[in-house]
Amino acid sequence: MPPETVDLLVNARWVLPVVPENALYSDCSLVVNQGRIVGLMPSAEARRRFHSRHTVDLDNHVLMPGLVNAHAHLAMSLFRGYADDLPLDVWLEQHIWPAEARWVGEEFCRTGAELAMAEMLRSGTTCFADMYFFPDQVAELAREHGLRCQLAFPILNFATAWARDGDDYIHKGLKVRDNFKDDELIRFAFGPHAPYTVDDRYLEKVVTYANELDTGVQIHLHETQAEVDDALSSTGQRPIERLHRLGLLTANTQCVHMSALTDSDIELLVDSRAHVIHCPRSNLKLGNGFCPTHWLLDKGVNVALGTDGAASNNSLDLFSEMQFAALLAKGQSGDPAVLDSHQALRMATLNGARALGMEDTIGSLEPGKAADMIAVDLSHLPQQPLYNPLSQLVYTHVCHRVSHAWIAGEQKVDNFELSGFEEHELAAKARQWRDRIGQDRATI
Amino acid sequence: MPPETVDLLVNARWVLPVVPENALYSDCSLVVNQGRIVGLMPSAEARRRFHSRHTVDLDNHVLMPGLVNAHAHLAMSLFRGYADDLPLDVWLEQHIWPAEARWVGEEFCRTGAELAMAEMLRSGTTCFADMYFFPDQVAELAREHGLRCQLAFPILNFATAWARDGDDYIHKGLKVRDNFKDDELIRFAFGPHAPYTVDDRYLEKVVTYANELDTGVQIHLHETQAEVDDALSSTGQRPIERLHRLGLLTANTQCVHMSALTDSDIELLVDSRAHVIHCPRSNLKLGNGFCPTHWLLDKGVNVALGTDGAASNNSLDLFSEMQFAALLAKGQSGDPAVLDSHQALRMATLNGARALGMEDTIGSLEPGKAADMIAVDLSHLPQQPLYNPLSQLVYTHVCHRVSHAWIAGEQKVDNFELSGFEEHELAAKARQWRDRIGQDRATI
Repeated sequence: MPPETVDLLVNARWVLPVVPENALYSDCSLVVNQGRIVGLMPSAEARRRFHSRHTVDLDNHVLMPGLVNAHAHLAMSLFRGYADDLPLDVWLEQHIWPAEARWVGEEFCRTGAELAMAEMLRSGTTCFADMYFFPDQVAELAREHGLRCQLAFPILNFATAWARDGDDYIHKGLKVRDNFKDDELIRFAFGPHAPYTVDDRYLEKVVTYANELDTGVQIHLHETQAEVDDALSSTGQRPIERLHRLGLLTANTQCVHMSALTDSDIELLVDSRAHVIHCPRSNLKLGNGFCPTHWLLDKGVNVALGTDGAASNNSLDLFSEMQFAALLAKGQSGDPAVLDSHQALRMATLNGARALGMEDTIGSLEPGKAADMIAVDLSHLPQQPLYNPLSQLVYTHVCHRVSHAWIAGEQKVDNFELSGFEEHELAAKARQWRDRIGQDRATI
Repeated sequence: MPPETVDLLVNARWVLPVVPENALYSDCSLVVNQGRIVGLMPSAEARRRFHSRHTVDLDNHVLMPGLVNAHAHLAMSLFRGYADDLPLDVWLEQHIWPAEARWVGEEFCRTGAELAMAEMLRSGTTCFADMYFFPDQVAELAREHGLRCQLAFPILNFATAWARDGDDYIHKGLKVRDNFKDDELIRFAFGPHAPYTVDDRYLEKVVTYANELDTGVQIHLHETQAEVDDALSSTGQRPIERLHRLGLLTANTQCVHMSALTDSDIELLVDSRAHVIHCPRSNLKLGNGFCPTHWLLDKGVNVALGTDGAASNNSLDLFSEMQFAALLAKGQSGDPAVLDSHQALRMATLNGARALGMEDTIGSLEPGKAADMIAVDLSHLPQQPLYNPLSQLVYTHVCHRVSHAWIAGEQKVDNFELSGFEEHELAAKARQWRDRIGQDRATI
C-alpha cells in the first residue's frame, strides 16, 4: 500500500496525549491532516504509512495538547501591575473600577486583548475563555489570528462603556454572536458577571436563552466568603442556591473561583454537573481563600484552570497555574500525593475543554480531534536530569520553553517565534497606554 | 577635579537598592571599584565624576542585589523529579534515602552542586547556603567559580558516605572549614540536620564550637506537625524548646521551615533573634504546612527565603519563591496587603544576607558593600505595560530574564551568557547520572 499523503508529521521525543490517563509515549509521531489529528504512533510506523508535506522534528521536546485558559479578562492586561498589594475594597473601588470607567473602550479592549493573546500563545495556551467588554473586538482579533476561544459577553445591571443595562448587554452580546456564527474556532457564552451584580430578571433571561441556544454560561461565583455572607444576609440564600433556584446551574454552567464552599454547595455542583474554574494565583493574590480542588475532583466535579485577568495575577501563564494548583492542593490537604502532575495537566487541558463544551474537539491528542497542540523544549539545565517530563512541566518553569504551537493544524509558534503578531508594535502600544493610564493614576 | 578611574559603571533604567525601603531609582548608575560598590547616583553625575574601565548600559533593566538562597541541598539536583507526588514517608523511606545511600559520593556531590550553581546563577542567585555531604567538593567548586556561599556541613547521629558519627561529621566539617579559611567568599556553618536526627551530646558540642568560633548554625526545625508531636511525646518538649534549653537558639541560628508554630515558639524566635528560612514551594509540595511568615515579620523576626533541594521543589529559582511567599501569605491571612512585593524582595536579598551573617557585605546596593548584583531585562511582552518594575519582578516570571550577574564585581552572567561553566558538558553529566540512577530505580 503506498504511503498516504498528509499535511503534517510531528516527530517528538515524548508525547503526553492526556488520554489515556498517565500515558507518556517516547519517540512517537503525531499525524495531522486538514487540521485534525489522524494518528499517533511510533515514528517508524508513521514514516512507513505516511508521506508528509511538512515534518517537524522535536528531539528534546514534549508534544502535548495546547493549554486551555478557562477564565481570563484579556484586555485587563493593560492594567497589569497597575495596583498591587492592596486591600480588596481599595483595589477595586479606588483603582480598578475607576480605571475601567475612565479607560475601557474599543481601542483599549483591542490592544489589551491582542497583548494577552500574544502572551498566551507564547506560553502554551491555544484556547482561552474571555469575559470582558467589547467582545466584538476580541472576536475580530481572534478571527484574524486564527485563535480558538469562548467569549463570554458580560451582563451587568448597570451601565458601562459597552452597554446600558442587562437587556442591552444581552442584546449586544447575542448580536456579536450572530455576526461570528460561521467561525468554527469562536464560541460565545453568556457572562453574567456575578450573583451580586445581576438581578434575577436578567439571570432568568440568561436561563431562557442559554437553554434555547444550548450555550455556556460563565459566572464569578463564591469568590469570597464576604460574597456568600452578604447574599445570605440580604436574600437568605447562598449564591449557588440562588442560581440553582433560577435554573442557572446546569452542565453548561462554568463557576469561576468557588473559594467559599460548604458540603451542600459541593453537592449542588455534583448534582448539576456544573464546572468549576479554579484561578489559584488570583485567589491568593486577592486574599480570597482556597478552592477545595482536590475534594471537588474526588467527588467527580470537573475542575479546570484559569489565570483570571492580569490585574490580579499578573501573568497569563497557565503552566504557573498548574504548579500553583498542584502545590496548593498538597499544602491545603497536607497530603503530597493529592493533585498529582497528571491531574494538574488534565485540569489545564481536557478539563478546560470540557468546561467550555469543547471536549469533543480539543483537550487531548486523540485521532479525530483538532490539531491544537504545543511542544515544550526540556533540554535546558533547570530541567536536568529528566526522570519524568511531566514532573518538570508542572514543577519547574517552562512557560518560556514553549517552542511550537498549532491551532487546528495552523502553526502559531515556530521554534520560539510567534507568527502573525507584531510584537514590537504591541509593546509600543502597551507603553503608550501605560503613559496615559499611569499619568492619570499619578494625579489620583 | 579630574574624574576618578573605577573598574565598572553600570547605567540602569531602574535600580532597586532594597535599602532604603521601597526606593526605586530611575536612570541611575552604580559605580564599582575593586569589587565594592563605590556609589549609586544619577547617571549624569556618575559620568561627570568617574572614568570607568568598563561600562554596561542596561536600558530596559532593573539592577538589584543578587538573590540569596538561604537554604538548599545543591547536589540533590541530581534527584530532581526522581520521585514526585508521593506521601512523605514513602518519598523519604522508599525513594530519597535509599537513593542517597546508593549514590551519594564525591562525584555525585560535585556534579549535582555544579548543576545547581549554574541554575542558580542563571536565575539571579549570587549567594547560596548549602547543607549537604562532601562540603569540601562544593567549597572547591565555589572557589573555582568565584561564588559566595555558606556551607553548613551536616551533622547526624548515624553514618553516611561522608562520615561515621556526630563527632566524625563535626571533625570533618571543621577540617574543611580550616582548609578554606582564607577564602573571603566562602563561609562555613554547622548543619545539625534536625532535632530528631542529632542527639543532645552532639548539639551541645555544636553550641560550644559555634560560640567559640562565632559561626552560624543551620538546622531543619518544625518542618512538620508530626515532628513536633513526636518530640513532645518522646521528650515532653517542643523541638525549639529543646534547642533553647541546650543554648542552641541564638542570633547565629538559622531555623529552616518552621511550619508548625505556636505563640510560645514565636516568642522564643523573637527573644533569641534566631532567623527563619522559609521554603514555600518545598513546604507545599511535601504537604508540610504553612510557615506563618507575615506574623513572624510583624513581630520583627528576620525571615529569609530558600528553595530547599531540587528533589522537593523541583527548581532552584528564587524569584518563584518570592512569588509563592507573597501570594501564600496573602492567601493564609486573607489580606492582599500583607507581604508586599518589596517585603518579598527583601526576604530574598537583605534578610537572606542577615540570616547568613553577611548583612554587612551583601543584600543591598549600598556604598561599601560588595558588588553582588543582578540585572533583569523587563522588555518582554509578559511584563508589559510596566507601571511598577517591582511588581513584575515578584508577580510575573522573570527567572529566565536575568541578563547579568556579578559577584564581588566579577561578572558571572553577561547578556544571558553564563561564564565559567560548560553547560553542555554539565547537561551531559546530568544525563549520565539519570541513566545510572533511573535504571536502578526501575528495578525497585
